[in-house]
Amino acid sequence: MSKSKRGLELALLERIKKPNDIKKIPQDSYEDLAAEIRQFLVEKVSKTGGHLASNLGAVELTMALHLSLNLPEDKIVWDVGHQSYTHKLLTGRRKEFDHLRQFGGMSGFPKRKESPCDTFDTGHSSTSISAALGMVRARELRAEHRTIVAVIGDGAMTGGLAYEALNNVSHLSSNLIVILNDNSMSISRNVGGMPRYLSDIRTSNGYIHLRDKIYDSLNDALPIVAKSISKAKQSLKTLMVPGMFFEDMDITYLGPVDGHNVKDMVKAIGYAKRVNKAVLIHVCTKKGIGYGPAEKNPSKFHGTPPFDIATGEPKKKAKKPSYTETFSSAMLRLAAEEKGLVGITAAMEDGVGLQRFHTRYPNRFFDVGIAEQHAVTFAAGLAAGGMKPVVAVYSTFLQRAYDQIVTDVCLQKLPVVFAIDRAGIVGADGETHQGIFDLSYMSSIPGMTVMAPKNRRELADMLRFAIGLGCPVSIRYPRGDAYDGIRSCYAPLELGRAEMICDEGGVLLLAVGSMVKTAEKVREILAEQGIVCSIANARFVRPLDTDLLRRAAGSYSMVVTMEENIRSGGFGEHVASWYKEEGIDIPLLNISIPDGFIQQGTPEELYRLTGIDAESIACKIMEKTK
Amino acid sequence: MSKSKRGLELALLERIKKPNDIKKIPQDSYEDLAAEIRQFLVEKVSKTGGHLASNLGAVELTMALHLSLNLPEDKIVWDVGHQSYTHKLLTGRRKEFDHLRQFGGMSGFPKRKESPCDTFDTGHSSTSISAALGMVRARELRAEHRTIVAVIGDGAMTGGLAYEALNNVSHLSSNLIVILNDNSMSISRNVGGMPRYLSDIRTSNGYIHLRDKIYDSLNDALPIVAKSISKAKQSLKTLMVPGMFFEDMDITYLGPVDGHNVKDMVKAIGYAKRVNKAVLIHVCTKKGIGYGPAEKNPSKFHGTPPFDIATGEPKKKAKKPSYTETFSSAMLRLAAEEKGLVGITAAMEDGVGLQRFHTRYPNRFFDVGIAEQHAVTFAAGLAAGGMKPVVAVYSTFLQRAYDQIVTDVCLQKLPVVFAIDRAGIVGADGETHQGIFDLSYMSSIPGMTVMAPKNRRELADMLRFAIGLGCPVSIRYPRGDAYDGIRSCYAPLELGRAEMICDEGGVLLLAVGSMVKTAEKVREILAEQGIVCSIANARFVRPLDTDLLRRAAGSYSMVVTMEENIRSGGFGEHVASWYKEEGIDIPLLNISIPDGFIQQGTPEELYRLTGIDAESIACKIMEKTK
Repeated sequence: MSKSKRGLELALLERIKKPNDIKKIPQDSYEDLAAEIRQFLVEKVSKTGGHLASNLGAVELTMALHLSLNLPEDKIVWDVGHQSYTHKLLTGRRKEFDHLRQFGGMSGFPKRKESPCDTFDTGHSSTSISAALGMVRARELRAEHRTIVAVIGDGAMTGGLAYEALNNVSHLSSNLIVILNDNSMSISRNVGGMPRYLSDIRTSNGYIHLRDKIYDSLNDALPIVAKSISKAKQSLKTLMVPGMFFEDMDITYLGPVDGHNVKDMVKAIGYAKRVNKAVLIHVCTKKGIGYGPAEKNPSKFHGTPPFDIATGEPKKKAKKPSYTETFSSAMLRLAAEEKGLVGITAAMEDGVGLQRFHTRYPNRFFDVGIAEQHAVTFAAGLAAGGMKPVVAVYSTFLQRAYDQIVTDVCLQKLPVVFAIDRAGIVGADGETHQGIFDLSYMSSIPGMTVMAPKNRRELADMLRFAIGLGCPVSIRYPRGDAYDGIRSCYAPLELGRAEMICDEGGVLLLAVGSMVKTAEKVREILAEQGIVCSIANARFVRPLDTDLLRRAAGSYSMVVTMEENIRSGGFGEHVASWYKEEGIDIPLLNISIPDGFIQQGTPEELYRLTGIDAESIACKIMEKTK
Repeated sequence: MSKSKRGLELALLERIKKPNDIKKIPQDSYEDLAAEIRQFLVEKVSKTGGHLASNLGAVELTMALHLSLNLPEDKIVWDVGHQSYTHKLLTGRRKEFDHLRQFGGMSGFPKRKESPCDTFDTGHSSTSISAALGMVRARELRAEHRTIVAVIGDGAMTGGLAYEALNNVSHLSSNLIVILNDNSMSISRNVGGMPRYLSDIRTSNGYIHLRDKIYDSLNDALPIVAKSISKAKQSLKTLMVPGMFFEDMDITYLGPVDGHNVKDMVKAIGYAKRVNKAVLIHVCTKKGIGYGPAEKNPSKFHGTPPFDIATGEPKKKAKKPSYTETFSSAMLRLAAEEKGLVGITAAMEDGVGLQRFHTRYPNRFFDVGIAEQHAVTFAAGLAAGGMKPVVAVYSTFLQRAYDQIVTDVCLQKLPVVFAIDRAGIVGADGETHQGIFDLSYMSSIPGMTVMAPKNRRELADMLRFAIGLGCPVSIRYPRGDAYDGIRSCYAPLELGRAEMICDEGGVLLLAVGSMVKTAEKVREILAEQGIVCSIANARFVRPLDTDLLRRAAGSYSMVVTMEENIRSGGFGEHVASWYKEEGIDIPLLNISIPDGFIQQGTPEELYRLTGIDAESIACKIMEKTK
């Protein structure tokens, strides 16, 4: 930030209005441009919130790519995509940063609909090499000429999909560049053999010097035909031990390269472009570089709310406890009672609230890296070995372990508990991160019990209940503040039993989890219109409380199912189908998220957009009761 | 088979009645015992059908494990599990082989409910290391003492889950043995960098001799503390280049070992047990060894129907064309018309019927190995690059790519076609292989069109339609003979439109795919009872033909939805829910597979078991029309 303090006023950035404009910037201004970009990003993200540390780390890398490529003809696939802000800035989207991650505004991730320079939508990890390989094959078949680059972090390299792709990349006889952006972190600190291996490369003394020499000699020899490069490489192989892992996969390894030196990276990319096979460039970067607070605490600034630039402190404070914190405390309490309890996370120790559990019970805590599939099968193995595992993961990321939940957990009836955080609308991260499918995919798996708490206390109760149940259970709860209302209702949990919150006949609002709070508001609104409502907290999406459903037919004028999940395959469809099958006739209203992907925005905006806010629901009920 | 021909009468095998009995067999009889086991397996599988080649390859490996371990205290996790027959034989299940893979009989895969020696149910690939690591962590936490072994094939090593596990195994400071059973095949021949790498090890000259020397010196030095082993290994590391990939992951590598030499393997396992970290033993085996036809054609004998031992030919012949063959021919025809068409399979070239496509269009065919996740994201990349990819995969295995279908294909509206083979009841492979979830998980994904053909011709028509649609489409069709009836009905396909097969009022049988054939039988049965039925071929599970549904309310006495899919989240629930939501009152009957995992048996047995055979359906309709 030193440059920015001198008041540059972003003169260089001013000159970049569209793709490839960066090529007009003189070489000796690259450092200044990087500083301007950082100043811009910090200022904008301090207002809107967003991913900061990963974007600050990738400034020079992105500059080098844009200097080396011709966009949009050439293609960059950004893995996860939370490092793509500089790319957006350099492709003419500067003004859109005022509405970054806001409803109707620019996405924080690459979006094909935003720009032809965004080649593949990302958001979930480890997809970039697979997608880029697909584009390479398309290029070959269509006899096109373009450079295709996947940019993947070392964290994303712990995901099995990336390895599946590497295994397939080894076939190539045409160019594919994989840039490994190695900052030795995923969101939390990295774990596992691969990151350790990369770290060994980074720290091996004398290596970079040796690399430079090989490099120069290869560069001097260019242009040479691919075959002789390959031969030269063979003989150099023993000198290149640090990249042997990749060489063993038949992928040319180049690096490590300083990821904050634009010229070095341009040189490396230039060399890589000439090789007729897959080339991995190992680039070392520092997450959060250039902004002190983010450099010091990159995890905190991975995704940040609006903050004060001077201090790095968030602008809003004194929040209510979140569901994540409630889960966090409940795990600590339960772990003291139940010696078999173990906690598993996939690179989300902070996000899912297992830090304290980790500290207190280091041997019972497992962070498996960005590897949801392994997290689930590993948990199944722990359960088969007599433990009581709790897998804490975001709803959207758990999608990646669907098959493992079916086959390794439920088929074997193993007592694995899924604590599904960020279930429902998540807000600014948008389409790839909304947790709106878990009720559907979880409730269609035989043997899975599916629960959702109405408030803080019930989350803790449900976790205890689930661990005691001895079979597969999932508990889903939303992002953000935990609801603390309805404290007077805390009937003991009973498998497949809903809880009546208030029972005065009229319309029965049968609400799942977060929607109980909404049901209270609906009830208030309708009371003013003279429509009486009762509220039941469903508690279980599977098994259904069929006793209540049966009773409801005689006791209420209508049943309104309410869930923060997609309609298709959700709670409402199960209830409707059950009534239809039983031949019980009662008016039914299904309140759920209409089938579709849900854009970014504040949760309130998105509730309104999808018609699951209290006002919209009240309107629909009034219409139906007419 | 030379020994068996001399008429051994399985005298050695006779002495093995329960776990650990193999230890009573004298060392010099190991070869004879192996021959007896092979004779037994060939005879039994020739009658029942089953996985043969993989089991013949793993005879000595299993013997070595049983000689080295104490079951059931020690644990073996068999990856996929189609190599576990010898294990079943050596753990007292000899008699059950007469009912192998039959309804109520012994499973062809490990089953915890069958024996305490079966530690983890498998069936899907690449899970063993994750599960075994879970058991190791449980052992540590419970301060137990047992040896835990994962046995994984080189094919399964191309699955990302295996890599995620290896990445996590590197943390270990206690023993875990991973046996890499390397036969250089998955089901088809292997592809990719990892298999090529393993092959390099196998074929490197002089290496095995070198290994032997290192080995012996290490063995002589035993018992030595783990630390000094590690130190010794460090200095030897450069000599051990062939295993460097694993050493880089901080996993001790031992091998290659001859997988048909029991004594060598016992020695290797004995050494591995003493290392306080993860050890990988690289064992080289030959698929199908000991039975000529299987050795010659291991792919054919991967899974085989009953066959004639003398010739290796299947007992039943002259089958009708299967849906797989229909798909195979349709792909060839369409590829000639549509230059952008590409075919992708995940290690199932034969199974899904892409051999001819591969031969005819080698550049447009991609076998990605056992890597369904990559298959889907790679297809998305191809589609983003302008191609028209068809991903051909079994229903049950596609579960592993659920997240990629959601995020990489549907969110981006990319025109990827999923040709979902083995959808519905598959028969003898049992619980892990039934394709009974795809209608649920596919139809809940926004933007996905879900289709199923009534007969051969319609599958071809649907494939053409899907490729032309330009958006994500899935087409599901069952295992086995393709239905060739109802040839007179072939109304042009129209998005979201069902097809009336016969319309005479009465009960409307609204059938999905394979159930149209069943609906014809139901109609016949009910006609005899004086109940008139009409039949509609649903064609689309998503989007629903709501026009037909609306019309049906006035025209038929009842709507019977029929699908070969689990009830929860399936077609019937969507239809019921739609009627409920619209407030249209018509009696509805949901014919689907009741929520649960479905055991092995013939399809006919399982249709009856689950109540989706014509007789059961007719009964239910009669009951409901009373």
